[in-house]
Amino acid sequence: MELLQQTINKIGELDQAAMEKARKRVDSLIKPPKSLGRLEDLAVQLSGITGELYPSIDKKVVIVMAGDHGVYEEGVTNNPQIVTYEQTLHISNGLTGVCALANVTGANVVAVDVGVKRDFPDDSKVIKRKIKYGTDNMAKGPAMSREEAIRSIEVGIEIANQELAKGANLLGTGEMGIGNTTPTTAIISVLGNVEPIEITGRGAGLGAGGKKHKANVIKKAIELNQPNREDGIDVLAKVGGLEIGGMAGVMLGAAAARVPVVVDGYISTAAALIAASIEPKVKNYLITSHATAEPGGIKASELLGIQPMIFLDLCLGEGSGAALAFSVVEGAVRMMKDMATFRDVGMEL
Amino acid sequence: MELLQQTINKIGELDQAAMEKARKRVDSLIKPPKSLGRLEDLAVQLSGITGELYPSIDKKVVIVMAGDHGVYEEGVTNNPQIVTYEQTLHISNGLTGVCALANVTGANVVAVDVGVKRDFPDDSKVIKRKIKYGTDNMAKGPAMSREEAIRSIEVGIEIANQELAKGANLLGTGEMGIGNTTPTTAIISVLGNVEPIEITGRGAGLGAGGKKHKANVIKKAIELNQPNREDGIDVLAKVGGLEIGGMAGVMLGAAAARVPVVVDGYISTAAALIAASIEPKVKNYLITSHATAEPGGIKASELLGIQPMIFLDLCLGEGSGAALAFSVVEGAVRMMKDMATFRDVGMEL
Repeated sequence: MELLQQTINKIGELDQAAMEKARKRVDSLIKPPKSLGRLEDLAVQLSGITGELYPSIDKKVVIVMAGDHGVYEEGVTNNPQIVTYEQTLHISNGLTGVCALANVTGANVVAVDVGVKRDFPDDSKVIKRKIKYGTDNMAKGPAMSREEAIRSIEVGIEIANQELAKGANLLGTGEMGIGNTTPTTAIISVLGNVEPIEITGRGAGLGAGGKKHKANVIKKAIELNQPNREDGIDVLAKVGGLEIGGMAGVMLGAAAARVPVVVDGYISTAAALIAASIEPKVKNYLITSHATAEPGGIKASELLGIQPMIFLDLCLGEGSGAALAFSVVEGAVRMMKDMATFRDVGMEL
Repeated sequence: MELLQQTINKIGELDQAAMEKARKRVDSLIKPPKSLGRLEDLAVQLSGITGELYPSIDKKVVIVMAGDHGVYEEGVTNNPQIVTYEQTLHISNGLTGVCALANVTGANVVAVDVGVKRDFPDDSKVIKRKIKYGTDNMAKGPAMSREEAIRSIEVGIEIANQELAKGANLLGTGEMGIGNTTPTTAIISVLGNVEPIEITGRGAGLGAGGKKHKANVIKKAIELNQPNREDGIDVLAKVGGLEIGGMAGVMLGAAAARVPVVVDGYISTAAALIAASIEPKVKNYLITSHATAEPGGIKASELLGIQPMIFLDLCLGEGSGAALAFSVVEGAVRMMKDMATFRDVGMEL
């Protein structure tokens, strides 16, 4: 709890002076006012986060948190649970979707075991921070204890701090956890105060019957555990996941260090809601990425006040959308650095 | 006309065998089926265009066509006409929005004078292919002759061919032309068979009154010139623009050489409609980019059967959205090249 509290205490407001300077520069660039749209707002936000007019984002890292889910035994997904283990290993070896998309901007990808059911080989590149061998089944009791929930967030903070210490200046969140659209939907139901059935989606390939069953499992878990919607840690503990806590920690850690963090799709937005419930100022440090096909994603984006930038019907997870959005962040930085001003060219518009 | 006809004759169907092979590889990659959404379709399209399973797109070029518009004198825009000249010069010197965004993927930008009102200095980097000093005022007669329209398309083909000869393997279209949302809207009105008022937008900063006036000018130009909606060249000549013809030529040239071409926003979609009216198969070679704020852009995308990927409220033009979309195209190629298959990892899902 100490690390979490310290981290929360460090999260400040955006640097208004830097943002004003940035807005001034944006408006001085040789283009019609506002013609680069949300890229302009992004540039201003980046300045507010970093305090720099020309922030460096040359060391990008997607942090992929991996964990299993006890609720898997309720039959909420068609995919074998072992895939969490297998795919996390492949992520650590650079072989998966997020790795390929990270290569577009030369970003690194690190995989963290925060709660996978099986142990990784000692010589694997997976960062080993297992808290427990998957959550407990939230349809039968809390997914984890409050202490475990806090620990999962602190693992995220620690990993973020490690990467930042190595020079990372742009982070992205990703996850691997078979069944994790179920806790995600539960979190959004609770924090958004909506019925699970209204926002439950097909996850990675459920049919209509499966979707209804999944919504019922979520409803049951919420009724049984009674998570307190005023307390993000309680929600995370009762109906969340270890990798979701890990991602919330990455966001809090990035915010405390005044480093921008790109939020991937559906699961990441639930983590962002947890982080924002713990410390609302974290929202200032979040950068949106792609639009998820999951109906709950739209609700989560609304709650976070973010609007997706990329619409490609991605539903892979892993941080793949965050990796792709790194290019857009680079675009905002390039705009600030590489465009001339009206004064530079002696021109008036 | 000979070059145009030769180019049209060369435009073939997509390579179905290559697309089947590509789809097979996409489906063999370690991810749930279809989870990379439209990125998967894009990869398959790229294979259909190039015939390659792993297409190279290491030499990207945005070709920016510049031209002025006689209809400017009707007061359809608030911006001074000299900006076409000035901004084209700045583009050629790497100082503008498209240049900054091209830097994200290391793309080149070339600026072509196909019809700017003023001559560029001999020592400027602008490629000089002026057909005339701006179009004529379409509110008083045809914007140009049929011969000039064909010539503008052929300039585009020639420039595309030049860049391809230098090794370019991914093209993007861009434009600079003060007032050119007016001919763009006229083209989409005619080819889409809709009333100008329904799709006329604010361009680069018009108020409500200005917008209405602009729609009236477009309506008048169409009534006066009676463009034949079955004949893209006639539409281009009567209510189009030289830079729009140039971009249509770039698209036709790219298609003839089996090279993918990324279509920027509003003005570019009008050029794509002209190109597709001349040779419908060109559509297979077009890659979408960002969503324009102009209402006519939605209509144009529908007509072209393309769906934007990037939503950032960009309305700069210049090819800025195309430059940004190059990253997404890279993502599709990286997915094909860098991801492992289930067989590679001895895994079944």
